[in-house]
Amino acid sequence: MKAVIFVVDGLGDRPDKNGNTPLKEAKTPVMDRMAKEGICGLMNSVDIGVRPGSDTAHLALLGYDPYTTYTGRGPFEACGVGVTVKPGDIAFRCNFSSVDENFIVTDRRAGRIENTSELEKELDGLKIDDVEIIFKESGGYRAALVLRGPGLSDKITDADPKKEGKKVKEIHPLDDSKEAKKTAEIVNKLLKIAYEKLDKHPVNEERRKQNLPVANMIVPRGVGQVPEIMQFTEKTGLKGACIAGTGLIKGIAKMVGLDVIDVEGCDGTPDSDFMAKACAIVETLENYDFILVNVKGADEAGHDGNYELKKQVIEKVDEMLDYITKNISKDEVYFVLSGDHSTPIEEMDHSADPLPVVLWGKSVRVDDVEKFDEFSTYKGGLNWIKGVHIMPILLDLMGLAKKYGA
Amino acid sequence: MKAVIFVVDGLGDRPDKNGNTPLKEAKTPVMDRMAKEGICGLMNSVDIGVRPGSDTAHLALLGYDPYTTYTGRGPFEACGVGVTVKPGDIAFRCNFSSVDENFIVTDRRAGRIENTSELEKELDGLKIDDVEIIFKESGGYRAALVLRGPGLSDKITDADPKKEGKKVKEIHPLDDSKEAKKTAEIVNKLLKIAYEKLDKHPVNEERRKQNLPVANMIVPRGVGQVPEIMQFTEKTGLKGACIAGTGLIKGIAKMVGLDVIDVEGCDGTPDSDFMAKACAIVETLENYDFILVNVKGADEAGHDGNYELKKQVIEKVDEMLDYITKNISKDEVYFVLSGDHSTPIEEMDHSADPLPVVLWGKSVRVDDVEKFDEFSTYKGGLNWIKGVHIMPILLDLMGLAKKYGA
Repeated sequence: MKAVIFVVDGLGDRPDKNGNTPLKEAKTPVMDRMAKEGICGLMNSVDIGVRPGSDTAHLALLGYDPYTTYTGRGPFEACGVGVTVKPGDIAFRCNFSSVDENFIVTDRRAGRIENTSELEKELDGLKIDDVEIIFKESGGYRAALVLRGPGLSDKITDADPKKEGKKVKEIHPLDDSKEAKKTAEIVNKLLKIAYEKLDKHPVNEERRKQNLPVANMIVPRGVGQVPEIMQFTEKTGLKGACIAGTGLIKGIAKMVGLDVIDVEGCDGTPDSDFMAKACAIVETLENYDFILVNVKGADEAGHDGNYELKKQVIEKVDEMLDYITKNISKDEVYFVLSGDHSTPIEEMDHSADPLPVVLWGKSVRVDDVEKFDEFSTYKGGLNWIKGVHIMPILLDLMGLAKKYGA
Repeated sequence: MKAVIFVVDGLGDRPDKNGNTPLKEAKTPVMDRMAKEGICGLMNSVDIGVRPGSDTAHLALLGYDPYTTYTGRGPFEACGVGVTVKPGDIAFRCNFSSVDENFIVTDRRAGRIENTSELEKELDGLKIDDVEIIFKESGGYRAALVLRGPGLSDKITDADPKKEGKKVKEIHPLDDSKEAKKTAEIVNKLLKIAYEKLDKHPVNEERRKQNLPVANMIVPRGVGQVPEIMQFTEKTGLKGACIAGTGLIKGIAKMVGLDVIDVEGCDGTPDSDFMAKACAIVETLENYDFILVNVKGADEAGHDGNYELKKQVIEKVDEMLDYITKNISKDEVYFVLSGDHSTPIEEMDHSADPLPVVLWGKSVRVDDVEKFDEFSTYKGGLNWIKGVHIMPILLDLMGLAKKYGA
């Protein structure tokens, strides 16, 4: 048996004045068929009333308790852009920013500079005291920063003043440990070095000539210590892959040892990359036991408050599911369809409203639910579960769960 | 958006031989309409199978884990009667009792003595070693006792022999700590001092003349160390009030920083203080973001095993809800209607039977439930939740929940 967890990012919603949601109104014959043939319920990826980020939500869906494994966004972002992080590393997300000689930020994104690979070289591989600096640009003004060395801590403040016209913040330790003090000192030294190396760099001299904002500073935030995470295969016995568009989800996948499959296009149908992803899922299942799929789009529509677009994205996902369910065998694959969090149109942000979930496959206890939406699935046999319950339920159905006791 | 948590104390019940409960039989058109317009479920204020006190239940409903914040009844009672307690204080409830010269209790409530303010003065403000004694009578034979000083502990036994004819118990430490030993010694010294000061007090000499039991001893029980509790406003961002009749609930409210609103009467309708409370709720909502309401009566009827009275109280509460829902806007106020625990007629005490709960307001996922009772709401979209889930769900609906992750 194999398994797929299919995450429609931002899927859930709150009813509008007419009691409708994009998912309720969307034409989703395949989702509804899966609801009819499967076992349904509600799910909060983290917990009831907890408004999750995509990162904490996906960790939970993969069976990891986010409260012990999620140390901050930095480690997962760094992992996502290809840094091979190690437990104990201190990782940050960074912006290249423009600052004046007093470190006052004049442009947080350095004029959305597009190519920072030459600037990256100035910082990557530096050594400050006994700490190695790993620095990788991740497309334009964004970058990941990793500190590797003995006696470091993530109990430090970040540098981001959040607003232009404010000074890049000095890093301070958040506790009395010598590790926090040392880490804060290293980052403060690094920021000075970064300014010295970047301000007069030819890339920036050229930008000055063109009246473009210079990328003469890095501003780290989202600090976290890379956690010790038991790898997915060791934990589950499954060879796992991840198909996702966003770097953060890829980072989570890499952190737990899933192979990230990049999808470029595929001859299933001509219709956008949704179908390319559907093809990739079917193909990847030939070589893997497990796939975590994330489909963005509904979340973005939610963040934009665009009801119609969210509905359309959900309908496209339904087409993906049509292709997938026609090309996999219910006797061989367990399929979990849900989201990572709701992104209600009225909130334009993540919410804690629970998600509909369906578990489809051989030998599940089919319930009476006949429609996949926020108003039907709560009556199903899965009741109201948490994200961390999904993997144990799947492993049990697959005959892979360890017995607890005798 | 604002929010009300409306607690009908002791609301739930077990079915009688005909399968009825006071709530099921009561005519409650407003509760039923709220169930129809809202999202329903079952709730255990503390946890499934846990038989809660009103104190632990209300802490949970306010979003505080009772297992970490509830240290005993003493601190909340003391707070409720107006002692400004501080984290670390050791607090007790006390009775004034009558004892003989060997400390054998002859009347646990000192003949239900009505005025103890003169006796209070003998004890309040004493200093024993480095510990300050704060003592406040709280109406008749009841009082609150607080010890304030360095190195104290609540790991001690209490003094209450529970029966007349038994000796006031010596206090013993419950662990090997020097704090517990010190605290036990202080209380033992205090009891001796209390007897010395009270036994010959003019108030008691006068009672002896009138053949009334003397209030010549205090008997502390319900010890607890005042916990560090994050204040409600800091935790939630909401300016909160509490409308409740009983001192214990007021104490909980004060402990978490809610303003306690005392209701004396109100010109809404002439019909008892139920309607006065209903008016006060509507008025208080003008100046506050959040109100915790507790309506006693159903609980008392349950403790008395009085089915008809419990039903009548519930019908009066329905009239309150009629007034309230007509005078607030569903677009501005989230309203949670439930109880703190069941008080079944057959038990005449609190039980762990879960409570019906409805969450009424804008943008909730309305379910199919059409009646508010123990037999209908479990089919609703809220499923079976715990008391500590209520505040996170409300804060999420109000757009005030913090995101966990990115």
